[in-house]
Amino acid sequence: MRYKLTLEYDGTELLGWQRQNDGPSVQEYLETALLCLSGKDRIYTDERGVKHNPYAVFGKEAVTDVFCAGRTDAGVHALGQVAHFDLETVWEGWKLREALNYHLREAEAPVSVISAEPVADNFHARFSACGRHYLYKILNRRAYPVLQKNRVWWVPVPLNVEKMKQGASYLLGHHDFSAFRAAACQAKSPLKTLDRLDILTNGDEIDFIVEARSFLHHQVRNMVGTLKMVGDGHLQPEDVKTILNSRDRTKAGATAPACGLYLTKVIY
Amino acid sequence: MRYKLTLEYDGTELLGWQRQNDGPSVQEYLETALLCLSGKDRIYTDERGVKHNPYAVFGKEAVTDVFCAGRTDAGVHALGQVAHFDLETVWEGWKLREALNYHLREAEAPVSVISAEPVADNFHARFSACGRHYLYKILNRRAYPVLQKNRVWWVPVPLNVEKMKQGASYLLGHHDFSAFRAAACQAKSPLKTLDRLDILTNGDEIDFIVEARSFLHHQVRNMVGTLKMVGDGHLQPEDVKTILNSRDRTKAGATAPACGLYLTKVIY
Repeated sequence: MRYKLTLEYDGTELLGWQRQNDGPSVQEYLETALLCLSGKDRIYTDERGVKHNPYAVFGKEAVTDVFCAGRTDAGVHALGQVAHFDLETVWEGWKLREALNYHLREAEAPVSVISAEPVADNFHARFSACGRHYLYKILNRRAYPVLQKNRVWWVPVPLNVEKMKQGASYLLGHHDFSAFRAAACQAKSPLKTLDRLDILTNGDEIDFIVEARSFLHHQVRNMVGTLKMVGDGHLQPEDVKTILNSRDRTKAGATAPACGLYLTKVIY
Repeated sequence: MRYKLTLEYDGTELLGWQRQNDGPSVQEYLETALLCLSGKDRIYTDERGVKHNPYAVFGKEAVTDVFCAGRTDAGVHALGQVAHFDLETVWEGWKLREALNYHLREAEAPVSVISAEPVADNFHARFSACGRHYLYKILNRRAYPVLQKNRVWWVPVPLNVEKMKQGASYLLGHHDFSAFRAAACQAKSPLKTLDRLDILTNGDEIDFIVEARSFLHHQVRNMVGTLKMVGDGHLQPEDVKTILNSRDRTKAGATAPACGLYLTKVIY
């Protein structure tokens, strides 16, 4: 039986989505919680405080892997990440959500299951997705953030939002986004279609609403990093067009910090 | 010279506004930052990690006390607390803000100075205030909060917002609020005028916008605690009127948790 999860997480203390040997990840917390469903008494805690259940993988709840819509980097948050996995047992969606949240809370995981539901066997969190929505938050004021610590990119110099909006307009549509692509990016092609890049203000906060079918690695953070340089006057709005056309990563701005980025929704 | 500060703080790790012997407070962080302005090299760190400067109090920057508009309890947050104090030195507002924030960040204080400005000698953060605005946030969903951990009251049972709004309407205006008053309240009179109590929804979040000239101790949290019982069906909207008229604290609901409460603005 295949299940789909919608997840919220605070990426601050996580090494990202993918399981790593040197620290906690969303995948590890989820797979451990799934193991806990079958044999709580056999769990042990390793030196990092992560719980393991060495027997459960051979038991009824054998879980091979949890797949997600988009593998977020260390420090990146999610309000609506989607994941799928297979279980031999049949669960009602709400019961699975409650059971997983029970074990995630026990482990003090910064991960929460918003919803769980059985899906068709051909559903794939990554390959069935036809849209991904991100939010990037800048806090633009002199005083450093305390209530939004690790939730925003703090930019203490004044940003010109109108110029940033002008710069953003050049990025909309179908382009070769090589200039905004991380060196480690595994995508086959740098061609992507950016459907939405709106910049909204709410008091001292500047929100970037970004939507596309899919993104290159670091694409959102590299676009925001470049638009911030337009906002603070280091670049002119038209420079964004020149940078995009150059297809040269060294021309664009620095990657914006992970802590301002949220995966908000995945469309199927 | 008298100065007015506008402050943001994350109350989670604080024992509240007022200086305490057994843990950190906003007052202690601010007074220590003020001491640091005069003699950084004489500072020592006590066993709780709080910095002290035993000489500065006799020096040029002698600060006797920092006063605030409303002494918030342990765990309560502020987006716009106001404080005042006197300094012998004349500072430009922006320089004082930057200097205080420098020392607050050094101390890893969950307190940030949004603005600082010189004010008239007769300005008093508490006694000159003619209005106080609070926000109380409930997160109403099954999944526990991770991104808003310690920032909302998590209520996993469904709440009927329309009934809560009906109940809230009985609290508006001039009343004896004894039923919503903490035993420790030091106010001379239980008579207060509630100017605004709006309940707004934003996705899974329920926001209470509460405004009055002043409040009794725990009044906002006791009103929210009672309205939550209307929302979950333990009380009817009309019961709020009966409870208010009873002037009996034992009739109202439990005090809502501190972590959902924010002092947002003080009016002068």
